[in-house]
Amino acid sequence: MTMQEDYKIDEKGMPMTEMLYEGKAKQVFATGNPEVIIIHYKDDASAYNGIKRAQIANKGEWNNKISSIIYERLEKEGIKTHFIRRIDDRNQLCKRVKVIPIEVIVRNRAAGSMARRLGLPEGMQPKNTIYEYCYKNDELNDPLINEHHAVALGISTYEELDEIHGITERINCLLTEMFARIGVTLVDFKIEFGRTADGTLVLSDELSPDTCRLWDADTQEKLDKDRFRRDLGRVGEAYNEILSRLSRLD
Amino acid sequence: MTMQEDYKIDEKGMPMTEMLYEGKAKQVFATGNPEVIIIHYKDDASAYNGIKRAQIANKGEWNNKISSIIYERLEKEGIKTHFIRRIDDRNQLCKRVKVIPIEVIVRNRAAGSMARRLGLPEGMQPKNTIYEYCYKNDELNDPLINEHHAVALGISTYEELDEIHGITERINCLLTEMFARIGVTLVDFKIEFGRTADGTLVLSDELSPDTCRLWDADTQEKLDKDRFRRDLGRVGEAYNEILSRLSRLD
Repeated sequence: MTMQEDYKIDEKGMPMTEMLYEGKAKQVFATGNPEVIIIHYKDDASAYNGIKRAQIANKGEWNNKISSIIYERLEKEGIKTHFIRRIDDRNQLCKRVKVIPIEVIVRNRAAGSMARRLGLPEGMQPKNTIYEYCYKNDELNDPLINEHHAVALGISTYEELDEIHGITERINCLLTEMFARIGVTLVDFKIEFGRTADGTLVLSDELSPDTCRLWDADTQEKLDKDRFRRDLGRVGEAYNEILSRLSRLD
Repeated sequence: MTMQEDYKIDEKGMPMTEMLYEGKAKQVFATGNPEVIIIHYKDDASAYNGIKRAQIANKGEWNNKISSIIYERLEKEGIKTHFIRRIDDRNQLCKRVKVIPIEVIVRNRAAGSMARRLGLPEGMQPKNTIYEYCYKNDELNDPLINEHHAVALGISTYEELDEIHGITERINCLLTEMFARIGVTLVDFKIEFGRTADGTLVLSDELSPDTCRLWDADTQEKLDKDRFRRDLGRVGEAYNEILSRLSRLD
């Protein structure tokens, strides 16, 4: 594919094509190629299914760059993703996918909603890795489901979920090791999958401090969206810290 | 084991031994044999984790008899259970087990909490059977969990859950067929498992209109605890109807 002539970005960094979808933190724009989209990262932050909202200056730029670095590394390790390349500070070129409406959550330690629901202390490290599926549905508040629910809902199959689980295990290994090398504990993260036009199952969405819990390995300081959710202050500094550490990775 | 001399029941049907545990609908009493207990069925009904409470005259007797019939039939089909025999109207002799604090829920159709959580219409029949685990913990309101949570909580192992799943599939087949023969659709049910002193995994707790959703196959009339939960009236009549149909099974 040659994508060079397929899109235009204005001087403010906004794609000059049709907006296909607007989410809480990103916008998706068309390109001249129906199989390729632009993902534009906004500064909007939201938590608790949109109840808490704010703008965090430069967040869009940091997350675009952080996610691009991570996706490039995952691609190099053989993980198939929707990512093509980063265009500029705010925009990424990605393959268009049919999204599977499931959030796959991987938890190496207890934190957040799961810690509350199960009465586990935050930071508790179980012997096993915990995998969760949530049904992406804002009206239903993204309920926790299992594989049987997903199949009954008609949003996946047992075979597809097995494939997703295998890829997810591998991604967790790669990311845990990558973050450890920059002195960060990968507490948990959320990923999504989709299928490209030719049916290939690929990792989609983003990987950033919006979608991962990242703790400084020495101080346990939170370097992620929990700083926003819990009003801990220095939100932008945390995102910038993750970007700067990732940028030094060789 | 000879159990005949190991317990005494007074003229009102109450065991005359130490009460080991009192639940919402049952009491557990010791016998002279440390590996054997008496389960005494009360008329108390509760719903929504104890928020709604009432007495339903004779419910204890009906549930004791219904559960005894079902457990005897499951035992004949080779399912290992805690059940030894029914003593009288209110009491059962059972093997003492170490309870695994997991509620296993089997759903052949959507109903109740799952239908609400997932936005599915009540009565919807999915292509697959839905299996759910809940963590038995009143303080946490018995949260939905998956196998990874159960292992992380230290309440089971992946191997034990595989074994439980296999037995549960078989129980669902047997019960669905048994209820179909008396003109009843088995919508869903909840079971629990435990281990006897020698480590055998057995089905424990009860199977009754308190723990199963049972709909008349022709009229779809509810013949279970939903009559109490939803104030539909004729609660006792429904339980009695299930007992009388089960009693006619050959």
